[in-house]
Amino acid sequence: MKKAMSTMKDVAREAGVALGTVSRVVNGQQVGEEYRVKVEAAIEKLGYQVNPYARGLKTNKTNIIAVILPSMEHPYFSSLAQQINLSLTRRDYQMMLFLTDSHHNREDECVRMVRQNKVDGIIGLTYNAVHLSDDIPFISIDRYFGPNVPCVASDNYGGGRLAAERLAALGCKKVLSLWTGSATPGEADKRVDGFITGCNLLGIPCDDLRYVDVDGADVFRDHFQKHLIGGKLIYDGIFCNTDLLAIQVRELLAELGIRVPEDVQIIGFDGIRRFDNGKFYCTTIIQPVDKIAETCVDMLLREDRSQVPSLLCLPVSYGFGGTTKE
Amino acid sequence: MKKAMSTMKDVAREAGVALGTVSRVVNGQQVGEEYRVKVEAAIEKLGYQVNPYARGLKTNKTNIIAVILPSMEHPYFSSLAQQINLSLTRRDYQMMLFLTDSHHNREDECVRMVRQNKVDGIIGLTYNAVHLSDDIPFISIDRYFGPNVPCVASDNYGGGRLAAERLAALGCKKVLSLWTGSATPGEADKRVDGFITGCNLLGIPCDDLRYVDVDGADVFRDHFQKHLIGGKLIYDGIFCNTDLLAIQVRELLAELGIRVPEDVQIIGFDGIRRFDNGKFYCTTIIQPVDKIAETCVDMLLREDRSQVPSLLCLPVSYGFGGTTKE
Repeated sequence: MKKAMSTMKDVAREAGVALGTVSRVVNGQQVGEEYRVKVEAAIEKLGYQVNPYARGLKTNKTNIIAVILPSMEHPYFSSLAQQINLSLTRRDYQMMLFLTDSHHNREDECVRMVRQNKVDGIIGLTYNAVHLSDDIPFISIDRYFGPNVPCVASDNYGGGRLAAERLAALGCKKVLSLWTGSATPGEADKRVDGFITGCNLLGIPCDDLRYVDVDGADVFRDHFQKHLIGGKLIYDGIFCNTDLLAIQVRELLAELGIRVPEDVQIIGFDGIRRFDNGKFYCTTIIQPVDKIAETCVDMLLREDRSQVPSLLCLPVSYGFGGTTKE
Repeated sequence: MKKAMSTMKDVAREAGVALGTVSRVVNGQQVGEEYRVKVEAAIEKLGYQVNPYARGLKTNKTNIIAVILPSMEHPYFSSLAQQINLSLTRRDYQMMLFLTDSHHNREDECVRMVRQNKVDGIIGLTYNAVHLSDDIPFISIDRYFGPNVPCVASDNYGGGRLAAERLAALGCKKVLSLWTGSATPGEADKRVDGFITGCNLLGIPCDDLRYVDVDGADVFRDHFQKHLIGGKLIYDGIFCNTDLLAIQVRELLAELGIRVPEDVQIIGFDGIRRFDNGKFYCTTIIQPVDKIAETCVDMLLREDRSQVPSLLCLPVSYGFGGTTKE
């Protein structure tokens, strides 16, 4: 009869340390010398061997990555899920999906799962609180938590500047920047900053309106009505921080009898495509979803993560979708 | 010092049976008497205790369900992912997501994970081969594998009949049924059967065109052109087996100068909504995605699955989306 095996939990109990500490020693990660000695003594005493069920014999890996996204209902998020899954699959990893819109505090549940060796790491796009520490492999999408948590995002600032340059090249003389969003700061906030800076550099006058936590474009109706002269809007270009807002603004302008793109040109941000024909809903700055996904996975699974940058912004591009003159 | 523990694998080795057999005995599931005796003897001999890491101490549960979907790019699939996640979360389960469009044979990988106690069960919408056996908890969506694999689907047949009834009520006198799809048989094939039967019962003449593995509606162009009399199509109603096909058919008709819904009314199937305003792309038969998800999860996690039906069809409904007269 084969001798029954000790588990990592036995080692932790014997050494009087947390399970995560044993895991760090076993995986060759940094840990206090005092703890390392205790754990190694316990391993010796119990004749502990890394669980043969585990895929990575040497590292106790599960080959499972927790992915946190708000929902699957916004095309940007479902597209991210698709691409992250693809990048993980290529490396023989599985994706455990957590959606936060319907359930809060899933983030801390993920952190707990890493500590318990149930998943190897986390890729998360979240605006909720996450209680991270240095030992948790976590890559953030679109939200900068701090220098020790690598963040991957589109080049939102550059995208805002690109929108300003395009509107200028398309002949716009006076433009408006519209923003609606969450009060929690995120990388995407830089879109408007980039747009306004771009307009300043180009010498194009730009008005700037921002509303926190509102749905739809109706909040801008009053401003539009006050800036009509002889039935024409005083602006000939509008930048919206999302495609959804751009679509809603176009509808609002249609109600006011203003033609898009003849009277006013609009550029959104995201690069959302229609389900029926794959075309953009509006002219847009396209986020490189596949590259964001691949970069997150690559950074998370890199053996030496000490050289991982704290913020990595990936190049965006311009996509024509009918709300500009080209 | 605490005695090192035996694992389920040790028990399997000692008893000379498969790991899944040990799991079934431990979890109180049905298993041949001969096997049960062997396993219980081995458990006794090794002093085996269920792994304390496992969440469900008594049942060796992981509280993880593998979900197999083709991709996240079709709104029906991303909606299913969203709703299955919601149903699992409510029960404190996690979802491990496998997408098959980009990677085949993921199904057998899931089956292997169940056998290795890495996930508790599988919910799958797949047209690839799955090598199932009775000990694998598997709920199929939209594809009937056989009496031992429970399948959950929309009432596709009833939906086809509903479409026929609506077109009749809206005054259609001669209709056309269009189908494009995969050669692998699926529950959704019944949509057209239901539609044609509905037309027969209502005494409405109905032509029937089907094409395997084609993209787009262009394959029907020739048929349309041959059935124009004085610039008018001889049909005043068309049923398409998906919303996507319905949208493509509407565009094709527009090219031919035929007005929708004035000249021809179209009903699709799925209930896909636009991202920008939440409206249907076309008039449609709506699949109850939330109920499909909840039913799959409920059936999979039921303690006694012996009473689970082999096919469960959930009621659909009619949704107006501009391609019919109401």
